[in-house]
Amino acid sequence: MRLIVLSLLFTSTLAWFYGRDEPDRWSVGGVWPLPQKIIYGSKNRTLTYDKIGIDLGDKKDCDVLLAMADNYMNKWLFPYPVEMKTGGTEDFIITVTVKEECPGGPPVHGASEEYLLRVSVSEAVINAQTVWGALRAMETLSHLVFYDQKSQEYQIRTAEIFDKPRFPVRGIMIDSSRHFLSLNVIKRQLEIMSMNKLNVLHWHLVDSESFPYTSQKFPELHGVGAYSPRHVYSREDISEVIAFARLRGIRVIPEFDLPGHTSSWKGRKGFLTECFDEKGEETFLPNLVDPMNDANFDFLAEFLEEVTETFPDQFLHLGGDEVSDYIVECWVRNKKIRKFMDEKGFGNNTVLLENYFFEKLFSIVEKLKLKRKPIFWQEVFDNNIPDPNSIIHIWKGNTHEEIYEQVKNITSKNFPVIVSACWYLNYIKYGADWRDEIRGTAPSNSRYYYCDPTSFNGTDTQKNLVLGGIAAIWGELVDNTNIEARLWPRASAAAERLWSPAEKTQKAEDAWPRMHELRCRLVSRGYRIQPNNNPDYCPFEFDEPPATKSEL
Amino acid sequence: MRLIVLSLLFTSTLAWFYGRDEPDRWSVGGVWPLPQKIIYGSKNRTLTYDKIGIDLGDKKDCDVLLAMADNYMNKWLFPYPVEMKTGGTEDFIITVTVKEECPGGPPVHGASEEYLLRVSVSEAVINAQTVWGALRAMETLSHLVFYDQKSQEYQIRTAEIFDKPRFPVRGIMIDSSRHFLSLNVIKRQLEIMSMNKLNVLHWHLVDSESFPYTSQKFPELHGVGAYSPRHVYSREDISEVIAFARLRGIRVIPEFDLPGHTSSWKGRKGFLTECFDEKGEETFLPNLVDPMNDANFDFLAEFLEEVTETFPDQFLHLGGDEVSDYIVECWVRNKKIRKFMDEKGFGNNTVLLENYFFEKLFSIVEKLKLKRKPIFWQEVFDNNIPDPNSIIHIWKGNTHEEIYEQVKNITSKNFPVIVSACWYLNYIKYGADWRDEIRGTAPSNSRYYYCDPTSFNGTDTQKNLVLGGIAAIWGELVDNTNIEARLWPRASAAAERLWSPAEKTQKAEDAWPRMHELRCRLVSRGYRIQPNNNPDYCPFEFDEPPATKSEL
Repeated sequence: MRLIVLSLLFTSTLAWFYGRDEPDRWSVGGVWPLPQKIIYGSKNRTLTYDKIGIDLGDKKDCDVLLAMADNYMNKWLFPYPVEMKTGGTEDFIITVTVKEECPGGPPVHGASEEYLLRVSVSEAVINAQTVWGALRAMETLSHLVFYDQKSQEYQIRTAEIFDKPRFPVRGIMIDSSRHFLSLNVIKRQLEIMSMNKLNVLHWHLVDSESFPYTSQKFPELHGVGAYSPRHVYSREDISEVIAFARLRGIRVIPEFDLPGHTSSWKGRKGFLTECFDEKGEETFLPNLVDPMNDANFDFLAEFLEEVTETFPDQFLHLGGDEVSDYIVECWVRNKKIRKFMDEKGFGNNTVLLENYFFEKLFSIVEKLKLKRKPIFWQEVFDNNIPDPNSIIHIWKGNTHEEIYEQVKNITSKNFPVIVSACWYLNYIKYGADWRDEIRGTAPSNSRYYYCDPTSFNGTDTQKNLVLGGIAAIWGELVDNTNIEARLWPRASAAAERLWSPAEKTQKAEDAWPRMHELRCRLVSRGYRIQPNNNPDYCPFEFDEPPATKSEL
Repeated sequence: MRLIVLSLLFTSTLAWFYGRDEPDRWSVGGVWPLPQKIIYGSKNRTLTYDKIGIDLGDKKDCDVLLAMADNYMNKWLFPYPVEMKTGGTEDFIITVTVKEECPGGPPVHGASEEYLLRVSVSEAVINAQTVWGALRAMETLSHLVFYDQKSQEYQIRTAEIFDKPRFPVRGIMIDSSRHFLSLNVIKRQLEIMSMNKLNVLHWHLVDSESFPYTSQKFPELHGVGAYSPRHVYSREDISEVIAFARLRGIRVIPEFDLPGHTSSWKGRKGFLTECFDEKGEETFLPNLVDPMNDANFDFLAEFLEEVTETFPDQFLHLGGDEVSDYIVECWVRNKKIRKFMDEKGFGNNTVLLENYFFEKLFSIVEKLKLKRKPIFWQEVFDNNIPDPNSIIHIWKGNTHEEIYEQVKNITSKNFPVIVSACWYLNYIKYGADWRDEIRGTAPSNSRYYYCDPTSFNGTDTQKNLVLGGIAAIWGELVDNTNIEARLWPRASAAAERLWSPAEKTQKAEDAWPRMHELRCRLVSRGYRIQPNNNPDYCPFEFDEPPATKSEL
């Protein structure tokens, strides 16, 4: 018996497996992060790559805009490896008008990133207050470009866009102490950050494990503390990173974590206290600054002075986390410390000794020649008394609600806050963790797209104290080999929630097609943006060349 | 008051944090996987790279050995980017003696990989039965080479080694259906596999999501089922992979999963049954072969005949998993199927219909012109009646004990088994999951190093039926961007347990320094081997060049 079997058409009316998104569900000319206001036109326009021009107006000598023009016109507007339409009589000019002067330095805190972008079938017009706004506009413009598989040509969607960020601080924290990160890899992350309109690189430079920062005045620090003479950042390296970041509208905030997490400062004699195990033997690795020794504060003043000369940003992160993790071994069991506490009248209260340390540190920061606003991890608020000038950096909390509660509490005491707890991206889980509830190591179990740090009952004043967020990728299990794919597109979820209007970014399922298009666009630009939803593909996949050993 | 503070020496007598391994804890000239027998000599010998020769004896025309000589002499013996010692009067000859003739094809199942390797201060001598054994010996030789930071020169440890694998099947399973994998990326994995002495690439070519395999007789399959015309493997592509694998002593076993996981075969009219949701509407994606249609078996016979012409391996994986996941929608709710079951006297028992399908499939396999031994996922054993000639592939089990129990059960029925359940590497967890107990998605929660598939109470006959293991990296969230770092060095844990003597590989903490050295060696060779223990470093880190968009 031969049955007649109907032909099966594979159409979108059929449910995809388990409610998954179909592998080709992506937007066309979608913008990530979503702009404040975007109205698409009804027409698209074919782009002919050798007939597009850019006009920088009276800012044609501004290095930021020149680099921008070079990057987008020569690389990022047309990422796909396809034959490009050329010639013809068409022309399409991108006119960029920037009000403020070309800045000599990196973006300052709160600098405008606002822009207007109008794309018609005949031209594109960008208006911005600052070059940073122009950079954001240009990235948006590039998102309107798409490759049309049918006509096999590049097209651009027409649109009118008004845009500006929701929060002034939108960043990524990298950790170059647990594992060393090369300049190439840091620069790649800066590029991907700019493509997500992120504007802060928080560089956790040193930690217990290694000290890759090179001080000119105190070369013994990296001399002893770096993993090897190859695992260091010279002052030139750092300047290169800062300059590279600036051209992409990104500030670099350095962190020197004090007084804990300091084992790797061991090159500085007398900087750390001796630490003891339960039997009183000196076998525990020193990891706390010695606050008895006034010379340590003189050293820190001089060291931080040099740091401010190296890093131009107005913010300076001074850590302050997890001091209590080492208190017993390094202070309570240390007889000299106990004697010092007695002399100072602190009794058994080590918090008073912590306060003593931090007060000394605050006064160093106050006296810096180049003024700096200090950032501290939340313990300095939770356990100590922060300088009123401080910004508090939140990293604890198992759920979004716990995190919001802390934001509420800290802002109620009038401190500005930066939130990282929602986005601890080093903690990996299996699945679409940017979107789905997946249990894992806390803080920030998953659902990175759903964290909104102002989701608490509080006054407008409190909400205005929320400066933004920084997605953290701690380095215990992360190095050059895997940082890029681990960060992206998971950090893109944070990037959208920190830039876009809250009311338009409530549902990950609505965001996915744009994130998918973003992933494919950045993959085509040559970045390692991993799948983070379910089976899918890109019109042009990432490829990896054959292995070659690194060169001398 | 100024206290005198003792200088703190950073020595290995201080406990490292939280009992972690120190960042520089690595072996020097350690071999991964651990050989059956290795006796190190007391002396090392400096290697001068232009004074080393290789003598292939009477096999100097054998392509496998010539490729081996080229790879090791020109690339892998000296991976680090350092200035190399040259000249002088030294010479060091590697003499390779292979008994059997140079094989024209890839390794056959059970082919000898045994070797003897003697490295003295004056020479290295390799004796092997087959070229595959010589390949394994050469990799071992390269592990004895190290770069001495103090003398700044390459040295080789002297040693006498007898070695052979514990199991004949030691593999990696890749999934090119959920996400497409490029030839470059597959070849890189083959290279890393050979550096871990793995010898099987299990290629899960097609699945529900896409059909990248190109049949010449049935081009409608990839024509409709591939993600795009760019997401396919031509016959030449596949031959290239097989030839590349052969030169590294690796077999390629293809899988065509039947009768479930077949949505992407939709280009073949009438191959799949219609599927229905609860309301009886035809909205569920077809994902089961239609067993009513005899033409489907004629087609399968012809299709698999072509597969055997494309893939020379004696094994052919035909899937058989998760049929029950689609039974309700695609068979039970399908009126034509119910009528067919009535006619065949199966009543309501869909297992009888499954059996009917598999019996037809077995007879197709039996009649293949090029004889093939079929492999099936364990459901064909668990739910159906496998052909007695079958190999059973175990993928279920939440704990090692559950997995061992299945091995015991299946081998007690006289079926050879391959175990993947211990090594589902697509399921990621935060931490050193190759070593530590970390809860996550099962099977194979973690502790990849601790799975030994013969750890059950059974006869020698049963234990001999354990062919080995295949670490699986399913493709739902894995593509070119992240497969390499996700696989390695986690799959290296499986590689050691499948090659090395059980009694010498009981403790991950003993293995770590060698795994660390392996990681650094392969990183220097240009592979993306991620950190997988805790903070650490390599003498020379992996680096990533600036992004470039892929070329036409």
